[in-house]
Amino acid sequence: MKSTGRKADEKQRKRPFLSKKTTITNRKKIHIEWGDCDPAQIVHFPRYFAYFDACTAGLFKRVGLPKRKMLKTYGIIGIPLVDVRASFTAPSRFSDTVVVESEVTEWRRSSFSVRHRLFNKGVLAVECFEVRVWAAASAADPERIEGKPVPREVIKMFSAESNPKNNHRAAHQKSRRKKQ
Amino acid sequence: MKSTGRKADEKQRKRPFLSKKTTITNRKKIHIEWGDCDPAQIVHFPRYFAYFDACTAGLFKRVGLPKRKMLKTYGIIGIPLVDVRASFTAPSRFSDTVVVESEVTEWRRSSFSVRHRLFNKGVLAVECFEVRVWAAASAADPERIEGKPVPREVIKMFSAESNPKNNHRAAHQKSRRKKQ
Amino acid sequence: MKSTGRKADEKQRKRPFLSKKTTITNRKKIHIEWGDCDPAQIVHFPRYFAYFDACTAGLFKRVGLPKRKMLKTYGIIGIPLVDVRASFTAPSRFSDTVVVESEVTEWRRSSFSVRHRLFNKGVLAVECFEVRVWAAASAADPERIEGKPVPREVIKMFSAESNPKNNHRAAHQKSRRKKQ
Amino acid sequence: MKSTGRKADEKQRKRPFLSKKTTITNRKKIHIEWGDCDPAQIVHFPRYFAYFDACTAGLFKRVGLPKRKMLKTYGIIGIPLVDVRASFTAPSRFSDTVVVESEVTEWRRSSFSVRHRLFNKGVLAVECFEVRVWAAASAADPERIEGKPVPREVIKMFSAESNPKNNHRAAHQKSRRKKQ
Repeated sequence: MKSTGRKADEKQRKRPFLSKKTTITNRKKIHIEWGDCDPAQIVHFPRYFAYFDACTAGLFKRVGLPKRKMLKTYGIIGIPLVDVRASFTAPSRFSDTVVVESEVTEWRRSSFSVRHRLFNKGVLAVECFEVRVWAAASAADPERIEGKPVPREVIKMFSAESNPKNNHRAAHQKSRRKKQ
Repeated sequence: MKSTGRKADEKQRKRPFLSKKTTITNRKKIHIEWGDCDPAQIVHFPRYFAYFDACTAGLFKRVGLPKRKMLKTYGIIGIPLVDVRASFTAPSRFSDTVVVESEVTEWRRSSFSVRHRLFNKGVLAVECFEVRVWAAASAADPERIEGKPVPREVIKMFSAESNPKNNHRAAHQKSRRKKQ
Repeated sequence: MKSTGRKADEKQRKRPFLSKKTTITNRKKIHIEWGDCDPAQIVHFPRYFAYFDACTAGLFKRVGLPKRKMLKTYGIIGIPLVDVRASFTAPSRFSDTVVVESEVTEWRRSSFSVRHRLFNKGVLAVECFEVRVWAAASAADPERIEGKPVPREVIKMFSAESNPKNNHRAAHQKSRRKKQ
Repeated sequence: MKSTGRKADEKQRKRPFLSKKTTITNRKKIHIEWGDCDPAQIVHFPRYFAYFDACTAGLFKRVGLPKRKMLKTYGIIGIPLVDVRASFTAPSRFSDTVVVESEVTEWRRSSFSVRHRLFNKGVLAVECFEVRVWAAASAADPERIEGKPVPREVIKMFSAESNPKNNHRAAHQKSRRKKQ
């Protein structure tokens, strides 16, 4: 699952492909279910990662790439993780409704970073950083998974400027956030 | 879920409570189940955290503290996470049997760190670092969770020297590892 | 977890407490996530039961009893299952959005039945019948769980006639369904 | 996911393919994990189905068909469920170790039934009946799943008489059970 071409990745990093301010943020409401909580009555932490996985899928769906379509269109097997870290600063409980804000924070050659921030009653409760690989089955050995370059058109979809619909939504979101 | 007394924690860090070489390592075999895998045919990453949560429980059980007993004996509600990070270097698939080696790498005042290393066919496939809090319900507000000092006797249980049974097992384990 | 008083239950059965036509139906949209699916690319069946558990919670929330409030108000530990059966007639896949219709089909003294019907693209894909117990910790032994009589006011909440708000919604729902 | 040939199935039912007494039973020990339990401190019922799915896989592994090998050898995509029912008579809690006994109770043309009995401290706590289909991707439409005849050699593997190794184990198991 290693991403190919670390050097190429480094180079990519310097290319100001996507200025940070234009990136798309997806907001997803999640209702904390009884079955997501453990005997301490709080969310069992592995379930947060299931939420975040759904949030990353939601982010791609938002720009026009629901997961099934994304896999078919680009011939990938998925976008598996190579690295993840999370900080849990406040617990959440069943019957809570939380909001997760997700955005791609960096594109590299064959991998990318996603940040999720989960808010409970307006307070940041969990922050998570994922590094994911644009992954396909190896042509030589279908059981092997290898990183592929992220298609430029995919990256472009995340740029608000190139996407008036998203731009509008981002603006709308901003104004909503101000009101909070 | 914040650990109390960061300063106290810093001080604790310097006290050479537990020299690293004496710590207990628990080894747990895990059979990767069909239901742990996603449509890419590999373990869905949140499931790794469920494995690791069970491995931390297994580590405490190994030193004489199965979770239910631990909670009752010390009046805690659990050992929830405040921080976690993981690197995934090789995928695992259903029908694989993996081995996870787990050990406490640091004790602080009211928190501690655990490292898990998951091996598939002898190769390190996932590495995970957890920071957990020794947590009780707040006396003032039972809905609030707060860190409590980790009892010294608990920390001692992890010291092979103070525990001839564990010492023996650790030695046994070492020799087994040499043979591999 | 056995419900107390089977005979009392039998009697209850005959009392036409709630005529079927007045009961509340809750409709819940569920987006099938990647992590809910197995290597056959379809929903791993235990996840359906997690959906249905959330749907039962959603049904109670709909009548004014979000789970946390329900537990606090009535001093119960939950509504655990004693019996469940399900038929799977069509698979669902990640990126599908399904709809689950849930309703209480019978109230007994200390237990009740819930039916869930999951539709994918308008076709019934899964049908599930749950029997749940209104359960509290035993006064004698807090580790024991025992059935308690379902409060009459809870049952009333599910009666559309006694609940103009729900009645309205039910009517609305009916008309919507006709249009489909 | 419908099994093909209900009539053929009926016929099969009458063929005394496998006399009940010779069938293989698999016993699997399961340690109930913290993360399998809900805020009522008992196993969240969907997790039981994950256990049972693993137990069915364990049963096939026992007769020589670990899941990955089974899928490859017979060109199937899995053995998805068409029907399941379960009764929960006693709760289980984290730190409990339970035993599940699993066996195929009936073979039909393209489907089969499995019974699981979960014992906690020797007491039957959960009983589950699964009906599963021997399923392959449709040749006409790879997205469609269809039932295929269960290979006769697979059924034979479950017959203790045809399998001296299993026969021995079954005998051993019997004697062990007597001692309990």
